[in-house]
Amino acid sequence: MYSIEEIIEPETIAIVGSARRNEFYFLRSLVAAGFKGAIYPVNPHVKSAYGLKFYKSLSEIPDKIDLIICAVKAKLVPEVVREGVEKGVKCIVIFSSGFSESGTEEGKRLEKEIVEIARKRGVRIIGPNCMGIYYPEHGLSFRTDLRRKRGPVGFVSQSGGHAIGFSLAGNDAGIFFSKVFSFGNAADVTASELIEFLTRDEKTKIIAVYIEGVKDGPRFMRAIREAALRKPVIVWKGGKTEAGSRAAASHTGAIAGSPKILDAVFTQTNAVQVESFDEILDTTLAFTYCPPVYENRVGLISISGGSGVTNSDACTKTGLEVPQLSEETRKKLGSVISGAGTSVKNPVDLAGAYLNPEAVSTTVETLGAEPYIDSIIFEVQVHYPSFLAKFVDTPELAAMIYKTISDSCKEVLEEYGKPVLIAIPPIGYHEAVRIARDMFLEAKLPVFPSVDRAAKALANMARYYKKSQKLKELEEQKPQQTAV
Amino acid sequence: MYSIEEIIEPETIAIVGSARRNEFYFLRSLVAAGFKGAIYPVNPHVKSAYGLKFYKSLSEIPDKIDLIICAVKAKLVPEVVREGVEKGVKCIVIFSSGFSESGTEEGKRLEKEIVEIARKRGVRIIGPNCMGIYYPEHGLSFRTDLRRKRGPVGFVSQSGGHAIGFSLAGNDAGIFFSKVFSFGNAADVTASELIEFLTRDEKTKIIAVYIEGVKDGPRFMRAIREAALRKPVIVWKGGKTEAGSRAAASHTGAIAGSPKILDAVFTQTNAVQVESFDEILDTTLAFTYCPPVYENRVGLISISGGSGVTNSDACTKTGLEVPQLSEETRKKLGSVISGAGTSVKNPVDLAGAYLNPEAVSTTVETLGAEPYIDSIIFEVQVHYPSFLAKFVDTPELAAMIYKTISDSCKEVLEEYGKPVLIAIPPIGYHEAVRIARDMFLEAKLPVFPSVDRAAKALANMARYYKKSQKLKELEEQKPQQTAV
Repeated sequence: MYSIEEIIEPETIAIVGSARRNEFYFLRSLVAAGFKGAIYPVNPHVKSAYGLKFYKSLSEIPDKIDLIICAVKAKLVPEVVREGVEKGVKCIVIFSSGFSESGTEEGKRLEKEIVEIARKRGVRIIGPNCMGIYYPEHGLSFRTDLRRKRGPVGFVSQSGGHAIGFSLAGNDAGIFFSKVFSFGNAADVTASELIEFLTRDEKTKIIAVYIEGVKDGPRFMRAIREAALRKPVIVWKGGKTEAGSRAAASHTGAIAGSPKILDAVFTQTNAVQVESFDEILDTTLAFTYCPPVYENRVGLISISGGSGVTNSDACTKTGLEVPQLSEETRKKLGSVISGAGTSVKNPVDLAGAYLNPEAVSTTVETLGAEPYIDSIIFEVQVHYPSFLAKFVDTPELAAMIYKTISDSCKEVLEEYGKPVLIAIPPIGYHEAVRIARDMFLEAKLPVFPSVDRAAKALANMARYYKKSQKLKELEEQKPQQTAV
Repeated sequence: MYSIEEIIEPETIAIVGSARRNEFYFLRSLVAAGFKGAIYPVNPHVKSAYGLKFYKSLSEIPDKIDLIICAVKAKLVPEVVREGVEKGVKCIVIFSSGFSESGTEEGKRLEKEIVEIARKRGVRIIGPNCMGIYYPEHGLSFRTDLRRKRGPVGFVSQSGGHAIGFSLAGNDAGIFFSKVFSFGNAADVTASELIEFLTRDEKTKIIAVYIEGVKDGPRFMRAIREAALRKPVIVWKGGKTEAGSRAAASHTGAIAGSPKILDAVFTQTNAVQVESFDEILDTTLAFTYCPPVYENRVGLISISGGSGVTNSDACTKTGLEVPQLSEETRKKLGSVISGAGTSVKNPVDLAGAYLNPEAVSTTVETLGAEPYIDSIIFEVQVHYPSFLAKFVDTPELAAMIYKTISDSCKEVLEEYGKPVLIAIPPIGYHEAVRIARDMFLEAKLPVFPSVDRAAKALANMARYYKKSQKLKELEEQKPQQTAV
């Protein structure tokens, strides 16, 4: 049986069922991703498209084939698998749906059949009912619009929709990927095996998982535990409620009974549990850009008193602390920040001093240097003051202010190794928000749409690293044992 | 003592301290809002600006003055108030800060002094430390970029920042205002009095409140209770945590001790409690566009199975139900929706059928007609299918699909009086998201950035209307009493 390592770097790919109907979707995706190997589309009704010759059948292709992407009707899939096995492929990604998730006997039978055919020769199946692999470094993709740029995040998703959504939204937020797997019904390759692979994979530094149900509970549990001992693992479980679990059953055929195992995953391992698309995105973003942080005391900076109040509430609710500043520090801040509406406590309310570069950089660097502050969240409100909102009219001023913020934030990041998170609420001026966001991302500072969301991500991250530290200490205290 | 009704429609306004330093901020705001009355800026160092003559002092103005906007340093404010009272004004909005919120004895003394001066003649003070009034119908505003368009929402905010943020973000989301008050330290006019006013105000149909602390607990409690019996009242309390309450003390001088009263507000009245900027925005948006709904059974439509699963989870977590469809209804949907990846349960997964107008409208209208479905949330994923994401390349197709959705949603809204909420996740294609969002808003359908947020708003709304109904029933059962 081929391992994941053996299947994910194909030299040649056949796309069976590449059709005009979907504008040759998978073909175009591979071309867009810059796949360097040979692509052989198979469709008896097409002669050529995108400069590629089409073949009538797999057997007609005058080359060995490593990977098949199969997008024909369910009932035709067994024949494709049979031919693929004959042809000596290593892996078949089955996009087609209409298998066990349909709930029909015929669907279940078909799924069993294809696995049996493949397993005889150790051929692996990803899916059915999935989008397959996005592996930018190797030129594999399931969309035409995902970035070729690679990064540290591995994502394992039972849902094709969430695989696409997370990859796209991730790229947009500054998250780049080592490998993304959409594995659908998990007829052969399971989440557990993919997580084990990403745990071994040196290019993957952070593992994110969307799961609806597991058939191999103990292995999944072990995979998550081992992974979370080595790298951050963020898990979003779909179908935790009765209505969601009903939907999951018809989506990927995910079976009930697994909730208990999944609960255990979160209590008995150091995986980070998240509850929504936004939270998996934000938490992954925080892990991607921030250094490890073990305590939860945050320094808050904003330019409105009301925001300072509600940001403090938001941080506290996620388990972060907003410690008071020492008398000395307040005096130091007070020497550069003064005037109506300012406050030099934590949260710091810059108010009008926001326009004074010295006030901004002194604030950020002073908070960053405090031994009882572990991280900073800086709220950048582009609509404040009002002339900054019309960013395009004041590009130099805006650029100067945002550069001051990002330079001093980078200093805290680099000199003290403390996380700095930027929040830019999308209030009114969408173009200005985009420009400001891109400037901070360019400076490698992660940007969130609210302090609430930044705080949640930061709290998740701090909890993970703190528990990691404890687990490592326990590990070191243990008498050496023979590995099982 | 003038009532709020008597002060909020000034014919003449003097702006004391209108200065080049802030680019004549309040002057420009009034001009932008189209104020029809006379504006008299006062500043001995300026001759004229924006075509208006400046005066050296209030007494020099050859006209009666109804309202003063005061933006001079704190220590100069008592003199302005004294002159204003002499001049016969009805109300003074004090933007200046440096009063009780500063925590200094001098600040507290100044605040007491100005109130004493004003009260002798019944002159009202809004603030100090506030932005004042945005009343688009009368041409009053505290920003140059707020819409002149008026609407049903009254907002009372202790924070100037949140008053601006909520008004701007509201305008952008399709929320328009009857009156917005930023009242800061509440030295004279309090949240309670403003809420009582908005309760009486026929132009205000929905009341939103941001509050940090109250000095007149019992009156506030009564005001909220009475208001919530007549219209939806949404309250966001800042400073509920220790850190937040510390920040509130230096922001608006809000005092501790009030949390208990505020807790009672939520348990003993029908006010809707919200916990974040996003939630007050979303809940206000839902109340603005949706008809009353008394039960919580929602029909979910999306075009991805994974989203269906996690949307069901999100709805359930907020207290909504996602009921199963009857066998008959499933058959009906199955006759128009078929093919790989679709699901005709609740949630409905349209998958590829999304491109078929008949499938879309049949789904929306069928769910809308079901007696056990009280509302619909339709998730529009602009990145799905991929060619729709490049909205600009396929404007006719996109417009056709979105028109089908909005037409059928409007039918449910109008024919069955059921709320329909649209969720458009901001994934990757920001321009396409904007265009789609504007199309739905144009059709008077409220748009949220996720099903999670739409669900929370819908659940808040359903809880309010259900409790309202009960309270009304109780009221009717009571023997008639003499009003106290």
